[in-house]
Amino acid sequence: MMTDLTDTDPAHVGDRSAWAGAYRRVRAASEALCTPLCVEDYGLQTADFASPPKWHLAHVSWFFETFLLEPFLPGYRVFDPAYRTLFNSYYEQVGQFHPRPDRGHLSRPTVAEVYRYRAHVDGAMAALVDQIGEDLWPTVQSRLAIGLNHEQQHQELLLTDVKQHFSVNPLRPAYRADLAAPRSVDALPLAWQAFEGGLLACGDDGEGFSYDNERPRHKVFLRPYALANRPVTNAEYLAFVDAGGYRNPALWLSDGWATAQAGRWSAPRYWERIDGDWHEFTLGGLRPLDLAAPVSHVSYFEADAYATWAGARLPTEAEWEVAAAQAPVLGNFVDHGLLHPQAATGDGLVQLFGDVWEHTASAYLAYPGYRPPAGALGEYNGKFMSGQMVLRGGSCATPVGHVRATYRNFFYPQERWQFQGIRLAQDPT
Amino acid sequence: MMTDLTDTDPAHVGDRSAWAGAYRRVRAASEALCTPLCVEDYGLQTADFASPPKWHLAHVSWFFETFLLEPFLPGYRVFDPAYRTLFNSYYEQVGQFHPRPDRGHLSRPTVAEVYRYRAHVDGAMAALVDQIGEDLWPTVQSRLAIGLNHEQQHQELLLTDVKQHFSVNPLRPAYRADLAAPRSVDALPLAWQAFEGGLLACGDDGEGFSYDNERPRHKVFLRPYALANRPVTNAEYLAFVDAGGYRNPALWLSDGWATAQAGRWSAPRYWERIDGDWHEFTLGGLRPLDLAAPVSHVSYFEADAYATWAGARLPTEAEWEVAAAQAPVLGNFVDHGLLHPQAATGDGLVQLFGDVWEHTASAYLAYPGYRPPAGALGEYNGKFMSGQMVLRGGSCATPVGHVRATYRNFFYPQERWQFQGIRLAQDPT
Amino acid sequence: MMTDLTDTDPAHVGDRSAWAGAYRRVRAASEALCTPLCVEDYGLQTADFASPPKWHLAHVSWFFETFLLEPFLPGYRVFDPAYRTLFNSYYEQVGQFHPRPDRGHLSRPTVAEVYRYRAHVDGAMAALVDQIGEDLWPTVQSRLAIGLNHEQQHQELLLTDVKQHFSVNPLRPAYRADLAAPRSVDALPLAWQAFEGGLLACGDDGEGFSYDNERPRHKVFLRPYALANRPVTNAEYLAFVDAGGYRNPALWLSDGWATAQAGRWSAPRYWERIDGDWHEFTLGGLRPLDLAAPVSHVSYFEADAYATWAGARLPTEAEWEVAAAQAPVLGNFVDHGLLHPQAATGDGLVQLFGDVWEHTASAYLAYPGYRPPAGALGEYNGKFMSGQMVLRGGSCATPVGHVRATYRNFFYPQERWQFQGIRLAQDPT
Amino acid sequence: MMTDLTDTDPAHVGDRSAWAGAYRRVRAASEALCTPLCVEDYGLQTADFASPPKWHLAHVSWFFETFLLEPFLPGYRVFDPAYRTLFNSYYEQVGQFHPRPDRGHLSRPTVAEVYRYRAHVDGAMAALVDQIGEDLWPTVQSRLAIGLNHEQQHQELLLTDVKQHFSVNPLRPAYRADLAAPRSVDALPLAWQAFEGGLLACGDDGEGFSYDNERPRHKVFLRPYALANRPVTNAEYLAFVDAGGYRNPALWLSDGWATAQAGRWSAPRYWERIDGDWHEFTLGGLRPLDLAAPVSHVSYFEADAYATWAGARLPTEAEWEVAAAQAPVLGNFVDHGLLHPQAATGDGLVQLFGDVWEHTASAYLAYPGYRPPAGALGEYNGKFMSGQMVLRGGSCATPVGHVRATYRNFFYPQERWQFQGIRLAQDPT
Repeated sequence: MMTDLTDTDPAHVGDRSAWAGAYRRVRAASEALCTPLCVEDYGLQTADFASPPKWHLAHVSWFFETFLLEPFLPGYRVFDPAYRTLFNSYYEQVGQFHPRPDRGHLSRPTVAEVYRYRAHVDGAMAALVDQIGEDLWPTVQSRLAIGLNHEQQHQELLLTDVKQHFSVNPLRPAYRADLAAPRSVDALPLAWQAFEGGLLACGDDGEGFSYDNERPRHKVFLRPYALANRPVTNAEYLAFVDAGGYRNPALWLSDGWATAQAGRWSAPRYWERIDGDWHEFTLGGLRPLDLAAPVSHVSYFEADAYATWAGARLPTEAEWEVAAAQAPVLGNFVDHGLLHPQAATGDGLVQLFGDVWEHTASAYLAYPGYRPPAGALGEYNGKFMSGQMVLRGGSCATPVGHVRATYRNFFYPQERWQFQGIRLAQDPT
Repeated sequence: MMTDLTDTDPAHVGDRSAWAGAYRRVRAASEALCTPLCVEDYGLQTADFASPPKWHLAHVSWFFETFLLEPFLPGYRVFDPAYRTLFNSYYEQVGQFHPRPDRGHLSRPTVAEVYRYRAHVDGAMAALVDQIGEDLWPTVQSRLAIGLNHEQQHQELLLTDVKQHFSVNPLRPAYRADLAAPRSVDALPLAWQAFEGGLLACGDDGEGFSYDNERPRHKVFLRPYALANRPVTNAEYLAFVDAGGYRNPALWLSDGWATAQAGRWSAPRYWERIDGDWHEFTLGGLRPLDLAAPVSHVSYFEADAYATWAGARLPTEAEWEVAAAQAPVLGNFVDHGLLHPQAATGDGLVQLFGDVWEHTASAYLAYPGYRPPAGALGEYNGKFMSGQMVLRGGSCATPVGHVRATYRNFFYPQERWQFQGIRLAQDPT
Repeated sequence: MMTDLTDTDPAHVGDRSAWAGAYRRVRAASEALCTPLCVEDYGLQTADFASPPKWHLAHVSWFFETFLLEPFLPGYRVFDPAYRTLFNSYYEQVGQFHPRPDRGHLSRPTVAEVYRYRAHVDGAMAALVDQIGEDLWPTVQSRLAIGLNHEQQHQELLLTDVKQHFSVNPLRPAYRADLAAPRSVDALPLAWQAFEGGLLACGDDGEGFSYDNERPRHKVFLRPYALANRPVTNAEYLAFVDAGGYRNPALWLSDGWATAQAGRWSAPRYWERIDGDWHEFTLGGLRPLDLAAPVSHVSYFEADAYATWAGARLPTEAEWEVAAAQAPVLGNFVDHGLLHPQAATGDGLVQLFGDVWEHTASAYLAYPGYRPPAGALGEYNGKFMSGQMVLRGGSCATPVGHVRATYRNFFYPQERWQFQGIRLAQDPT
Repeated sequence: MMTDLTDTDPAHVGDRSAWAGAYRRVRAASEALCTPLCVEDYGLQTADFASPPKWHLAHVSWFFETFLLEPFLPGYRVFDPAYRTLFNSYYEQVGQFHPRPDRGHLSRPTVAEVYRYRAHVDGAMAALVDQIGEDLWPTVQSRLAIGLNHEQQHQELLLTDVKQHFSVNPLRPAYRADLAAPRSVDALPLAWQAFEGGLLACGDDGEGFSYDNERPRHKVFLRPYALANRPVTNAEYLAFVDAGGYRNPALWLSDGWATAQAGRWSAPRYWERIDGDWHEFTLGGLRPLDLAAPVSHVSYFEADAYATWAGARLPTEAEWEVAAAQAPVLGNFVDHGLLHPQAATGDGLVQLFGDVWEHTASAYLAYPGYRPPAGALGEYNGKFMSGQMVLRGGSCATPVGHVRATYRNFFYPQERWQFQGIRLAQDPT
């Protein structure tokens, strides 16, 4: 239903009209994701870490306004000066920002006003791309690429945030009541694929778009290792649950055990036991647990505990990247409209991309030689290099064309409202 | 603009058609108050103590459904069984209730659905009043009176909650941008009216409607005292602020000082200093402070500190009631559409009713001989007789006909999102 | 074992040598209470509301230093200027004070230094009483009376705080391992004593010592009422527990239920069920529950819930005072060395004084005409007149001679680390 | 003053009598550190993260009792079964443990009892080392080595915890009032030492003692880099403070800025500005800031912000280890009795060991191939591999002989009550 966004990749588009088209497609995709929403849904905030859909729609527009229109479009008038603060997420160098936990406290601007804001920005962006001089075009193009990728990231967050918001409503509303049910297939048997290791290169140094945190490309020494052919399934994870995995501190990291106890965790985030049967809350509403599908919405802490219980470990981000570097970036992305991880099929390493983000054993830190960009855009990635862990590969909520083998996503080890799954690794015996 | 609701007082209506009419008027008044709202406003909750408008509209309907339709209307089908929990406020004997701080987490049911819920209840209520047998009519009538007064209380809360919700939005939206500006008048000079005291009676024992907490009528011994002719004005309160009232712990109760320090209080709840000039946030938006009008949105702690600073004290509820018992229940109520306290005019004790609730020095406790009603309706008032203080007289957000001299409102001493003002008392010199 | 302190009552002593003797006896009594303590015990603080013994010993000395020695003894040098802040409890007008929750963070001054501080103050106080001129003697005498009563209050707190501190140690140490076991007696049957009510006087206006909050004497109108002949016993309270009293919200005030749920209350503060048998932690260590003795360490919330369950109510403070006004101030006080409530015996109203403080239904508020004293001493009682409830009669931890019929103690409704019990009241049928 | 502990290194001692001697020396060193304490100091806990000295003394004894005496000494009777819980720190597989924030709530066992506990354990340990059969000796020896190193770690914590505890006392007591003042020397000029990088080895695989987290030895690829010849001085850090470093969010990690704002940080943990002059609280009391000495008590967040401001970065742990691997393990350790970082002198890389722990840019994670030991001892290090950062090199509070080039210490990025300093790194230009 949604257009394939692969060709929005800035690396594939060289001229302004292509960029203008990419801009229109990405912006339209955000709005298409909101089609199933009621006006009431746009303002919801049910957790500090999750934002209202309306805020996402406005913030990504603020990004274009702040980093492109204000500095580069002569005579541009901001839609509303108050939005400078209201829709700034965390850019200290831009100015103040509305407190994150209070994003749901804003019934105004209304949904209609936010759409008018988007249209205002869209008109000006079209003019900018059309009119900007050749001397400034490379800078504008570079920032435009960031802005579009930024909006794609918020598309994914918009979906996972809506899932969070709906999940705490006792009515358990479905984002898409018409969502296709999962295919009934047998789970793919677990197998291990071996890698030799050695002195290898990670990170991006190409011509195409990548975030600063994927750079520079650098050498890493890896020992031989093996990766599971597919992510851990719900059936496998259920065995961990049934074996008392959530009651055995010996399996857990110390902070993980404290988190699990404090939050009274006994299963992944969206599992619910109803009259003895496990269900999971999905973007299609509450459904019986699909045992063959990848487990999702597990935190790093749970992924690590599961791996310990299974006698395996999580891969490092370098191990994952080396394995993924040669694979095509294909998989179950948001554009396919399934909006839920699907049971794996196929040969070799499958589901590296799409379906679920894969936890790694690597802390989100700077690569050797990394320097954040100058100015406020330097706050995009660099200042979060503390306390978070790297995830790889994208999910069923990620736009097609957004991720690549070098792409580094990052979340705190206790967070689990994203589509986060587990691919096991092990050392050769 | 709104219909006068005085004749909804159940004491004035004896037959079923009159009750049916009162029901329709009260219900219509709730919806009329929502006319200025956007769909987005209905779901807002910006503080644990304040509910979304949508929740108020649904909860008062739940009240009729729970205490009248389910027990008395044969064959009644609840609109949605999930609402039993969603819109129960705090009646433990009815069952579970959705956590109060999470009332703003419910985008569904939508606003339209809540209006359908109201219509469903309204139809059934009309049938109930029409069809109930004579034997059960007195019980139904009694509960209907409570239900209508209950809905009126929520009308006031709906307004004060909307004020709270809008006040934290940096855009400072106006609930009614067309609200009349205050008349420009001089403040009425402060004067004292003396009362003899003696062995007097307080509380209600009449035929008309009153809440259980106003009963039974009982004797109280009062020493001679005097009351101020009108509430403290903004100008007077500003003198307290300017004299360092918020920085001098000697004026404050210990808990009050702790509250003021923790909350960084330096003025009443809705005052804002902009470029050196005091403004106040009103239901008509941000306006210059009206110096002649009664100060409002001050907590008991502030009222007590102000009285100490002014060399006076707050009246007890008995002192207030004795003074108010002979006065007509006239004043600036919500039906007048001003939605803000107005400068006092007139002779004698003025503004006892309407404009601002008046803090008393009395804790909200049971009258001698008080017994809460049996069953869940006994939770309406009795279980809150701890830690709260009594306020008297109604405000500019109170429906006409809702209050009387014996009416006891109650809030925690730190709360100040209601239209709460100060009438001073003193002992004879 | 301890000297009877009755004759320390300032009302009974008219000359300076008698005051000097009273001073010495009260000061010695504080130190005698510390005899069973180890050095390690003196610094313990296990809850924000409870202070270390060392802090009590120093604070009462600071009180004499601040309100008597510094203003009235020429040439007095404070023991250590830092103590001005360290041992100020809450007197804002005196200056800053060390945060209450951090009183246990002070290993220095050591115990020996605090005793030296006491000796320093004692020497200077002896000189002051001896040397002060006749013109200032009345003021000094008045403050001295407050200071001695103040120290007696802290003697009681020292004991109840030690009980709190020891109770959270898994070793359950005994303050006095040699404490006498309770007599084995049958509980006195419950009986009701009727009172006529009428227009009566409460409060103190006598020559002897009383606190400002007991004044002025004033008229109160009371309806006929009856009081239980003795406090509720542990056996009676156990029946409430066994009947599910802690699981039935219909019996509780709203704030009380919230407190009980949050604190997971299922019995009085110091009850422990061990292998199915109820025990209570006492100043003599852990002991089997004495069923005939008065229940103690119950909060106002529990007392109110119990009374509701029992079909009775709590008395108002006026009802209690009228009943107690003619009774001799005799009972189980700290000087008797039992340090625990004892089973009631005797005829008529028994145990009005001593054994357990008796909860009343009255909020702690100013009497009509009350004015706090000028200056910092005005902070002693007046600023706490908010949010607390009145208790009457003293306990087994109160010094002989300290309480009287008009004496008003006050605590927050959720507090229960004092020896607080329940005497029921009821209206005539 | 204290004996050099270098020869307690298990790698250097092969026979039982040598081990018995090492045991006696380490145990005596713990007690010697307590010589300056008053009884009152032993029970202090002023922060959740810092334990009372008494608890340290008992816990290290519990460690020997639990992991050596109970399993290996036939007929051993524990000193007190309650200690199993009281002095277990966090070993879930051993059983329950007393809550960490409540360690200061235990006045009993008394200090004297804890010393008796130590003597009891010491006697049994002497017997164990003497009597254990040859078959079990290797296991006992291995655990004994862990137990002695464990006690040394707690010696350092005991000192840094006492510093924390004393620092919040307004009297600012000195742990050692007789502590030598710093030498007055000029700061060593900053210089850079270059390293070539390449494919290098890190971690320990030797015969001597090392913790599991230092293993296995593994290859790491490093780019060329340079290290500062000495840690950042107080003078240099003061320039950062004076330049507004604590007010400029652009210099900080996002979590660091949030932490600094919430904690109102404006300087290192123990700096105090008194009448315009900077002082620092030391184990010798409050002293003027020694500008030539290394800055200490800075968190990872501060170290990272400083490095950013200085145009440099923190070294990775591998970069640090490669540089330190050839250096002798000499420096200002606790045995030298200075108990405070000293101004650097000398040529080349100085102060790698002792003085201050050096922050690294590396998260504390498992080395490739790492497996935690089986059983409860596996909880020693492995379960903390989440959320913490690695520090290297030991400090002025570390026992001589305790650290080595491969030693990995770890703390949360916001913690700063250890002697933590900063050595800068940079990439070649």
